[in-house]
Amino acid sequence: MTLGRLAAEPHHDGSALYVSTAHPELGQSVQVRLRIPVEYGAVSAVRTRSNPDHEPRFAEARRLGPAAADSPTGVEWWQAEVLVQNPVHGYRFLIERADGRVDWLSNGGLSDIETRDDDDFRLITYPPAPAWGAEAVMYQVFPDRFARSAAADARPLPEWAEPAEWDDEPIFRGPSTPRQFYGGDLDGIVEHLDHLERLGVTLLYLTPVFPGRSNHRYDAHTFDEVDPLLGGDAALARLTAAAHERGIRVMGDLTSNHSGDAHEWFRASHGQPGTPESDFYYWLDDEQRDYESWLGVASLPKLNWNSPELRRRFIEGPESVVARWLRPPYALDGWRIDVANMTGRFGEDDLNEAVRRTIRQTMIDVNPDTLLLAEYTNDAAKDLSGDGWHGAMTYASFTRPVWAWLSEPGPVDWFFGIPYPAMPQYTAEQVYHAHRRFTAAMPWRTRIHTMNALDTHDTARFAGRARPGTVPVAAGLSMTLPGIPVIFAGDELGATGENGEHSRTTMPWHRLDEHAERIELYAQLVRLRREHPALSHGGLRWLHVDAESLVFVRESQQESVLVLAARGDVDVRLAESAISGPAQRLLGSATLEGARIRSTGTAFTAWSLPGVAPPV
Amino acid sequence: MTLGRLAAEPHHDGSALYVSTAHPELGQSVQVRLRIPVEYGAVSAVRTRSNPDHEPRFAEARRLGPAAADSPTGVEWWQAEVLVQNPVHGYRFLIERADGRVDWLSNGGLSDIETRDDDDFRLITYPPAPAWGAEAVMYQVFPDRFARSAAADARPLPEWAEPAEWDDEPIFRGPSTPRQFYGGDLDGIVEHLDHLERLGVTLLYLTPVFPGRSNHRYDAHTFDEVDPLLGGDAALARLTAAAHERGIRVMGDLTSNHSGDAHEWFRASHGQPGTPESDFYYWLDDEQRDYESWLGVASLPKLNWNSPELRRRFIEGPESVVARWLRPPYALDGWRIDVANMTGRFGEDDLNEAVRRTIRQTMIDVNPDTLLLAEYTNDAAKDLSGDGWHGAMTYASFTRPVWAWLSEPGPVDWFFGIPYPAMPQYTAEQVYHAHRRFTAAMPWRTRIHTMNALDTHDTARFAGRARPGTVPVAAGLSMTLPGIPVIFAGDELGATGENGEHSRTTMPWHRLDEHAERIELYAQLVRLRREHPALSHGGLRWLHVDAESLVFVRESQQESVLVLAARGDVDVRLAESAISGPAQRLLGSATLEGARIRSTGTAFTAWSLPGVAPPV
Repeated sequence: MTLGRLAAEPHHDGSALYVSTAHPELGQSVQVRLRIPVEYGAVSAVRTRSNPDHEPRFAEARRLGPAAADSPTGVEWWQAEVLVQNPVHGYRFLIERADGRVDWLSNGGLSDIETRDDDDFRLITYPPAPAWGAEAVMYQVFPDRFARSAAADARPLPEWAEPAEWDDEPIFRGPSTPRQFYGGDLDGIVEHLDHLERLGVTLLYLTPVFPGRSNHRYDAHTFDEVDPLLGGDAALARLTAAAHERGIRVMGDLTSNHSGDAHEWFRASHGQPGTPESDFYYWLDDEQRDYESWLGVASLPKLNWNSPELRRRFIEGPESVVARWLRPPYALDGWRIDVANMTGRFGEDDLNEAVRRTIRQTMIDVNPDTLLLAEYTNDAAKDLSGDGWHGAMTYASFTRPVWAWLSEPGPVDWFFGIPYPAMPQYTAEQVYHAHRRFTAAMPWRTRIHTMNALDTHDTARFAGRARPGTVPVAAGLSMTLPGIPVIFAGDELGATGENGEHSRTTMPWHRLDEHAERIELYAQLVRLRREHPALSHGGLRWLHVDAESLVFVRESQQESVLVLAARGDVDVRLAESAISGPAQRLLGSATLEGARIRSTGTAFTAWSLPGVAPPV
Repeated sequence: MTLGRLAAEPHHDGSALYVSTAHPELGQSVQVRLRIPVEYGAVSAVRTRSNPDHEPRFAEARRLGPAAADSPTGVEWWQAEVLVQNPVHGYRFLIERADGRVDWLSNGGLSDIETRDDDDFRLITYPPAPAWGAEAVMYQVFPDRFARSAAADARPLPEWAEPAEWDDEPIFRGPSTPRQFYGGDLDGIVEHLDHLERLGVTLLYLTPVFPGRSNHRYDAHTFDEVDPLLGGDAALARLTAAAHERGIRVMGDLTSNHSGDAHEWFRASHGQPGTPESDFYYWLDDEQRDYESWLGVASLPKLNWNSPELRRRFIEGPESVVARWLRPPYALDGWRIDVANMTGRFGEDDLNEAVRRTIRQTMIDVNPDTLLLAEYTNDAAKDLSGDGWHGAMTYASFTRPVWAWLSEPGPVDWFFGIPYPAMPQYTAEQVYHAHRRFTAAMPWRTRIHTMNALDTHDTARFAGRARPGTVPVAAGLSMTLPGIPVIFAGDELGATGENGEHSRTTMPWHRLDEHAERIELYAQLVRLRREHPALSHGGLRWLHVDAESLVFVRESQQESVLVLAARGDVDVRLAESAISGPAQRLLGSATLEGARIRSTGTAFTAWSLPGVAPPV
């Protein structure tokens, strides 16, 4: 039996238990609270250290209610006022212990030496994400591969396409990869919304729907119409209407880094100096022949956001592309932005902040109840202060660490673009450290809107590399850690894929029954998520990590949900104060007796515990 | 005896051993090298991971010369090409070990999990600092307290001043603190340049010389003339001429965050809407009565850098304040910028980048051979990418960790503004971690231009809190770690002070002999620094840390300098490969036999070792 050391640490995060508001205005005072368990030892003073205009300012905290040693829960709470002086207002805690030692607590964790500004907790005055964002359970669909409506049969094959049978394996290397055409369409999705309902998902994310010359449509030649091969504009309107009727929101996909070389803007300017679109791209010669493109791929010319006209057409104002598809009858509920990380960046240019702020402002002007997520793939924190993007589609904080912990060892052709010689093998402790490291510089509100995907259309599928019995563990973590859980269509059927292109599998609608067990697993996990709002909004407090297990609790005033994720046997005794009261097991088979957790083999278990109320 | 674990780690930094140029142009390929000691174990592949436009790009490294196991030095070197694609181009190393494990090496150190972008090594295309910057040994003078020329006696006392006798103790609390006037002047400094020469310092930093209504002159009422109480413009010209003759450069001090409330710009606009200076400040009412000021101190109104006219007068172009004093006959060699951290920051405004870039461009236009340092006090990394400030006057990476390790325990009234209950007590291991943490996000070129001060006019004096025997250790570290060593006038006499105001002690010129030993200590340490260029430009490789000692080596192709700094007894055996050849002791009394270092009690010892040459 090991002892759960983390449970004895002081804790704070950006959730409602700890801050009086997550959406302060400039000049507003916010109450911030600190939870200190008795196992940490006696504390004589607590201060906050803010950093307004980058100059430290300390504020005294006062103890709320009794000291931990005298409290029936073994927990004491401290509270201080933080005056929000900048749009991103950093703060941390300085904890003075009765024995004279001092600790700092920042978003990176507890530290006995000073911490960096980047790891501060943050209060943010930018407009918040929509209320539904953190509660969303995302279902990602790659339209060519989800479902064909009857109308699809009547459509002529485009010249670039190589037809595939629905059950064909995706061709995942070579020139046929983007051409292999299955012919899924938007009405096909409408016809299968019952499947989404069965899973319980609430947000449908569609990769691009604009017409291109590939099955992925990231090379759109216009943003002014929905691809007729998908059913055209009307089909998109039908899909959003049908989804909204069932309480499912729909998110589109835009590429702000580049367009396709067949795009009307590119065709109007390539080799044609002096045209209105001439400043939309980075030309490398005066004749506008040669140009900068995404990673050197000539078919994807890079957009130049210095152009006011590009901004006006694409992202700024009510007539822009960004605005237009959010309005009825299309009424998309948000955008996922492709290659957001590179957007606006080239050589000495760095216009990312201006672009993301403009996109968000345009969305707010049309419909503030929309969500804006940004593809980052790697370290996403720098651009995610809340001024534009609400959250990231990133693999650094969740996806890769979980893969590295739960995947079979062995050679690996593809690991998220990182040239590892073999599948990396993390302990759960490394997962914990990686998760902390990559979320430390993220404000809480960004974390709860960041996608916890096990895989996407750009990655291999986790199920194909998972150690035996670990899919429930990995999927369980995606549903219970802060962030938006993601099911990439097919995950719920155990689909596999060696790389992103291979993972773009079709849905075997005629054989769904073969996957009833996996579907039920996902449905059960989605129910867990949706029936326990603490999993969407609650704080995250780590209780224990070792090589084989992660134990944490998501806490709110109404309820706490304790989670065990294990790859191997577990026998751990947590600090007594970690358990807020009688537990009810919600899922899984591990046992909780007092503060002792035991289980055998791979395990994903969740318990409901009483909510937590700081004294006033 | 303990084993020096760190010496077995792979190493890279931004010094000449490791990068083919520290000043690349955009689009240039730079060779970056990695040093791997045999004790690390066999390596099968090394790659660099760059992050152009925030998208990872990997490059293969090749092994230079024999593998570590076959190398006579027990060290192997790898080299890769990094194409510099942005003005700040981050990169790190991915090291594939023969046993299949993988490590990342970034500026934050070795990691078995992925690292953050902020901790990347960096190549920077902004114009470099002057060549002399990293070689400078700074001597800081607070003009009122350094020396009085005969002319000072003839000057009438200003109305605000309260005269002090030269030997009076500084009044360090209450209204007399800024008024206590000793009457030091610039010709007084000229008369004592032999003292600076004796010490060997090469850069004289003067706190402000413009006329104010206080002894510190941070409340200047104009930047257009040197305070007549200091001797006026002509005295500054005399001082820089005399200093330059002796090979000593002179740096001024400007406050870009605020002016004094007696400043001509403030007097011309306070309560007077519509004047040309009306937009120089942040007014809080239409009558321009109420205004934002530095930490609420009404006498220091905050400058509003949105004003083009303010920029023109103060920092932009050949007629600006910044430019004017760099030109002959004043010919200052640089500026230290007061409260740089807060400059341009207020509420939603953040103009810091624009201000620092403008200041630097103006300096380059007048005389590029000038240095620009910026006061940050705390975490300085965010603004120190090299686009403006060359380095920081900060206390987070060096000063506070060294104090916390080498100060006597006990109550403390003042610790750099941090409300600690007592003097913090670090182990040397904590010093190491703090130094790494706060330099990890700093480019190498910023580190070698960042001030390693034990104290300044804003802090208590270290000597007054030092544990017995530790002044040579602390001062030795300031001379041997990367950065600009600083002697605050009086340090070399053992001066003490309880806080910044108390530390503004006068120089007891008539009693210098009483301090001959301390003066000689400093002179010896400065000689060490100046006679061994590896201490200015060489790489920094940590060999060992434990609670009582720090062991590191500064390495160049010409020479390596091994340094031991110890608070208590040391007996450590380093990795054999750590010692590049026969050692010659330069200073101190510790012994080095083979790779074993031993010493007793506090110790500061330096050895000269052969230089290091990577194979081609």
